[in-house]
Amino acid sequence: MSGNSIGKIFTVTTFGSSHGDALGAVIDGCPAGLELSAQDLQNELNKRRPGTSQITTSRNEKDQVKIVSGIFEGKTDGTPITALVYNADMDSTAYENIKNNPRPGHGDYTWKTRYGTYDYRGGGRGSGRVTIGHVIGGAVAKKLLKTLNIKVISHVTQVGKIKAKPVDIQKLETNIIQNTVRCADLEAAGKMEAEIIVSKEAGDSIGGIVETVVLNSPAGLGDPVFGKIDAELAGALMGIGSVKGVEIGLGFKSAELKGSQMNDEFLIENDTIKTRTNHSGGILGGITTGMPINIRMAVKPTPSISLKQKTVDTNSMEPTEILIQGRHDPCICPRITPVAEATVSMVLVDQLIRAGYIDPCKL
Amino acid sequence: MSGNSIGKIFTVTTFGSSHGDALGAVIDGCPAGLELSAQDLQNELNKRRPGTSQITTSRNEKDQVKIVSGIFEGKTDGTPITALVYNADMDSTAYENIKNNPRPGHGDYTWKTRYGTYDYRGGGRGSGRVTIGHVIGGAVAKKLLKTLNIKVISHVTQVGKIKAKPVDIQKLETNIIQNTVRCADLEAAGKMEAEIIVSKEAGDSIGGIVETVVLNSPAGLGDPVFGKIDAELAGALMGIGSVKGVEIGLGFKSAELKGSQMNDEFLIENDTIKTRTNHSGGILGGITTGMPINIRMAVKPTPSISLKQKTVDTNSMEPTEILIQGRHDPCICPRITPVAEATVSMVLVDQLIRAGYIDPCKL
Amino acid sequence: MSGNSIGKIFTVTTFGSSHGDALGAVIDGCPAGLELSAQDLQNELNKRRPGTSQITTSRNEKDQVKIVSGIFEGKTDGTPITALVYNADMDSTAYENIKNNPRPGHGDYTWKTRYGTYDYRGGGRGSGRVTIGHVIGGAVAKKLLKTLNIKVISHVTQVGKIKAKPVDIQKLETNIIQNTVRCADLEAAGKMEAEIIVSKEAGDSIGGIVETVVLNSPAGLGDPVFGKIDAELAGALMGIGSVKGVEIGLGFKSAELKGSQMNDEFLIENDTIKTRTNHSGGILGGITTGMPINIRMAVKPTPSISLKQKTVDTNSMEPTEILIQGRHDPCICPRITPVAEATVSMVLVDQLIRAGYIDPCKL
Amino acid sequence: MSGNSIGKIFTVTTFGSSHGDALGAVIDGCPAGLELSAQDLQNELNKRRPGTSQITTSRNEKDQVKIVSGIFEGKTDGTPITALVYNADMDSTAYENIKNNPRPGHGDYTWKTRYGTYDYRGGGRGSGRVTIGHVIGGAVAKKLLKTLNIKVISHVTQVGKIKAKPVDIQKLETNIIQNTVRCADLEAAGKMEAEIIVSKEAGDSIGGIVETVVLNSPAGLGDPVFGKIDAELAGALMGIGSVKGVEIGLGFKSAELKGSQMNDEFLIENDTIKTRTNHSGGILGGITTGMPINIRMAVKPTPSISLKQKTVDTNSMEPTEILIQGRHDPCICPRITPVAEATVSMVLVDQLIRAGYIDPCKL
Repeated sequence: MSGNSIGKIFTVTTFGSSHGDALGAVIDGCPAGLELSAQDLQNELNKRRPGTSQITTSRNEKDQVKIVSGIFEGKTDGTPITALVYNADMDSTAYENIKNNPRPGHGDYTWKTRYGTYDYRGGGRGSGRVTIGHVIGGAVAKKLLKTLNIKVISHVTQVGKIKAKPVDIQKLETNIIQNTVRCADLEAAGKMEAEIIVSKEAGDSIGGIVETVVLNSPAGLGDPVFGKIDAELAGALMGIGSVKGVEIGLGFKSAELKGSQMNDEFLIENDTIKTRTNHSGGILGGITTGMPINIRMAVKPTPSISLKQKTVDTNSMEPTEILIQGRHDPCICPRITPVAEATVSMVLVDQLIRAGYIDPCKL
Repeated sequence: MSGNSIGKIFTVTTFGSSHGDALGAVIDGCPAGLELSAQDLQNELNKRRPGTSQITTSRNEKDQVKIVSGIFEGKTDGTPITALVYNADMDSTAYENIKNNPRPGHGDYTWKTRYGTYDYRGGGRGSGRVTIGHVIGGAVAKKLLKTLNIKVISHVTQVGKIKAKPVDIQKLETNIIQNTVRCADLEAAGKMEAEIIVSKEAGDSIGGIVETVVLNSPAGLGDPVFGKIDAELAGALMGIGSVKGVEIGLGFKSAELKGSQMNDEFLIENDTIKTRTNHSGGILGGITTGMPINIRMAVKPTPSISLKQKTVDTNSMEPTEILIQGRHDPCICPRITPVAEATVSMVLVDQLIRAGYIDPCKL
Repeated sequence: MSGNSIGKIFTVTTFGSSHGDALGAVIDGCPAGLELSAQDLQNELNKRRPGTSQITTSRNEKDQVKIVSGIFEGKTDGTPITALVYNADMDSTAYENIKNNPRPGHGDYTWKTRYGTYDYRGGGRGSGRVTIGHVIGGAVAKKLLKTLNIKVISHVTQVGKIKAKPVDIQKLETNIIQNTVRCADLEAAGKMEAEIIVSKEAGDSIGGIVETVVLNSPAGLGDPVFGKIDAELAGALMGIGSVKGVEIGLGFKSAELKGSQMNDEFLIENDTIKTRTNHSGGILGGITTGMPINIRMAVKPTPSISLKQKTVDTNSMEPTEILIQGRHDPCICPRITPVAEATVSMVLVDQLIRAGYIDPCKL
Repeated sequence: MSGNSIGKIFTVTTFGSSHGDALGAVIDGCPAGLELSAQDLQNELNKRRPGTSQITTSRNEKDQVKIVSGIFEGKTDGTPITALVYNADMDSTAYENIKNNPRPGHGDYTWKTRYGTYDYRGGGRGSGRVTIGHVIGGAVAKKLLKTLNIKVISHVTQVGKIKAKPVDIQKLETNIIQNTVRCADLEAAGKMEAEIIVSKEAGDSIGGIVETVVLNSPAGLGDPVFGKIDAELAGALMGIGSVKGVEIGLGFKSAELKGSQMNDEFLIENDTIKTRTNHSGGILGGITTGMPINIRMAVKPTPSISLKQKTVDTNSMEPTEILIQGRHDPCICPRITPVAEATVSMVLVDQLIRAGYIDPCKL
């Protein structure tokens, strides 16, 4: 399995680049019998679609998805599901004159070093548009999770120095759809939007934190020693462009604590073993406890900014300056939320099949 | 590949548990022609060996390693290298009376949920002793890295609330061997040791942060989109017991920054493209830049503490209390340092082979 | 990696079914810098295209291929190559009335048992049309092999009881294009064509043997113990629909021989170690010797015949009879030749990368 | 996953060589709760043990196995099972003077080409002794198969030109244990033994055919398109040393047949869908039908013979002659029978888990 596939049994292979013909995914290992339509995929893709508000890039892509294989009479039939989104609103001219000048904070230089070539147009396959593949795979995964009543919700908890207050887990979904920044603390949401606009107007960008929560996951998911569910989740999320850190439960805060503060005591509630607190974030020994899983990602500020930056010319090997044009999100966090949901969903489904919770052949 | 293997081409499979007969690893995919002796493995194992100072567990294991396959005339011959460490100083009695009482913060409950059974003696395969397998695999990886002059160094940067000051990267190695806590800031090291002893004497434990640095890594390592080197490193490190967070470069700090603050400008130094700063931690677009890689792990306080804790009895399904005896490290950070080095080394070697830097068959 | 992918590093994932929208493949792990056009794929697809002679099915598919990702400025760029063929000449009516009557010799019954559902139209993904994916993947592999001057040639050596005489390996290519049955012994070719037409006119079908030869393979390919090159080739070829046996070198004949007859003696020719005979078929100990590789596949007669056959009704669970209409090849051998070439080429390229003969990142 | 592992979920990694310290296997992915003792492994190993009759090698190895991990209170606990056999009766002197003269028919030359080095003592990891790993993995698999009442039986059907008559499938087991050649046709068995002794006394060796039969396999096993069960079985069996051909059902005979002769008609028996004949060997479309699976392997004559053979000296690059001493089986077929059973069993269990017939975590 080369680098563009994720999952051992529920395997999603993605393809495509920013300014190529199409982007998409092949989902292999989905059991037969799941109702699935292009609309299911479209609903998720619409959540990450650009051009929908003032705080996202002005590139206007409909991101219309088409399924070309794997569905028979409205249901999955056990064969690979392939879905495509054709690129439409491409403008490569902005990239032509910087093709030998690697953009700071981007993968231009490293991709070219590795492959000896680089599709510089819009970042090629290093672009955020590749997450269309994640979202397609995640949309199928989410439909499978729904059969088990498992929910995966992402929200923005920090933008720059503005931090959201904790919000009751049951209110997350209803709150985040009320603002473009997808923050569940509505008061903070307003400040975040303002902060993003300020950054944008200064030609700059801003970082933030995204949290993903999983509700109703059964206990017992995770395949130690190297396939632990926290390992797989962290790996998958760190692989999303711009993510520089991942933490689970109390995360980095746990470094400061005593064991007596950190440990979650066990108790019995409705004949089920639970933990009183959930400092572990729903995972102990790499296996789920049945408590909510929560993961936070540190998202760096968008590397594409409209300010002059120093770089080099890889042909002449001389220093030079670069002024990036193109169209970009001033803060990636809101648009990472559906991608994080998709990514977590794919990992979960793969683990659910590997643990026997989902039949690998048919529902 | 099931859950106890790591690596696609350089594949390490580990086995064994705390109170079973033996622990060990099979290393498959190591090119032939590498000089390798049991002593090479022993040197690394000695770094994680327990019972060596006041701040580690009093379990006294020699952890003598034996290689039983894969070496011919002092060199690897391309066939799987198998190495074993037999358990010696086992005392299972401390665990007998708590076998139905899952220890808070441990994997007892989740492992039993998953497998229907659990080797409760010393944590079974959930024990920190399984990292013997990591260290064996990592020792072979390190010898391969040495042929490319790549160095992997781990050090403790925080214990509880005591934070080390930044230390010049060239001084890390010489400084950390001067103290049992493996902190490069010698002044902080003393305070950390004191803090650990205080926690231990209170029957409690304490968390911390471990940083791993990679020097002299070539640019071009990393296999996008799902095999990015930061994704694989983060996944592998999060899988080490007690790690609750992983960050690369500026990590969570980048959430607060503007793009103009975060981006690393490119420059030319000795005909090589470098970055002026290294906020990205040596990785852009999931591929190494050639700058030092740096990763930090949040390590939770050891869950085994000597204070009474609330738990449940899984037989009677009644609440109960537990007092853990056994022998434990009051702070896991120092002993995680060699494990983190090993883990990073295994990931690096696998990526180096996948990128063509190491011949897959023979040196 | 689920069931629709082949290859560890050069990984080809195929999708699509007989009467779905499209068939195709994603090729992941192809190094950057390879010149590749849709025409390269089309040339190979044309060799397996139906409707081209009296002895193939009358289904008339243009099988026009389109590449939608992975190519930049006429060359591969290291990202996944995706190519699609849309189905055009579909006629599902012939299948409607037999959808609960599994066709003898086909996978209808077994697929339905496994997945609980089955796209009965044209055999769904059990159809021979899925080999479009093989051929696309193989076409990319062949272009890589060409850079190493490695040739893969398939020809038909038997149809029914008519056996071709051995033909000099250098004449294979020029001879097989002179007849529709792709047999290098031109005299036998005529008899085979006649035999196929006789079978067709009788409403029946006929089996045969296809041989694939690899020229100029380097010595040293093969990844023992479970990734031996003969193991991977045999597995991949047995997976082609209708193949019921695979043999290498002297194959089943070796069962009758003495060691003194079977063993290939070594000799030196132009400073290179070779074997005087090549009974081993170019593979010893699971690793190539550098001599030509030769493999033969037993191909069963097409299961779709126009004669009445006994089967069952899976709804009523009563015996019934079936008369298959649709359009079918009376002998699959000629059309398996490009598929076998493609399959062998994919396996070879994966092994060549794994053995360091092809750089995994860039040419 | 590198070359020494087999299986995606039930993954067996083997290690060790002919004259190294130990051989063995790690079995990862075995569900917890299976009763398993060293004796279970020993029973299978005894079937392939050398030195037990006049027609096997005189190397006398007890092949005493020891389990060092994965068992808790007499049952598997879900963690990797590791078992070792230490080499005892090694005599490397016979190999010293031929270390630069590759033995015809052996992997000496190809292994050395690939790895640049070669453990020439007894064939190193190219030796038949590596199948100890197969048998250990297979013994665990067989115990799992037993829980589903699935049986895997291998027998010798041909030695040189002596062919066994078909024997009722129910009598296979009782008949083969009555003779050292493991042939179910007792009359042929006697002739085979004589033939083997004649070959041995002439300093030569002889080939043969081994058949493996699977009884009571459920319908629905096999993971199309590239993970078909016939593909996986053929690949795994072709990887056993000395196997040069694999066929399923009618195999190569099907090349001569018409579709009307080959197709297996469906019928209903005891409310179950079966086929009247079983020409397909229990597999259609790469998925099991529920009928017995039968596979035959062509086994070449042992390459080690006591006659002078021509070879080359790889140091001087001059032709030379070789006279192999050491101790060898004059016919490998009898000792391949337990290896083929083991190999088929491992593939089956992996497929059973992947198809949901065996719970991946616990029995």
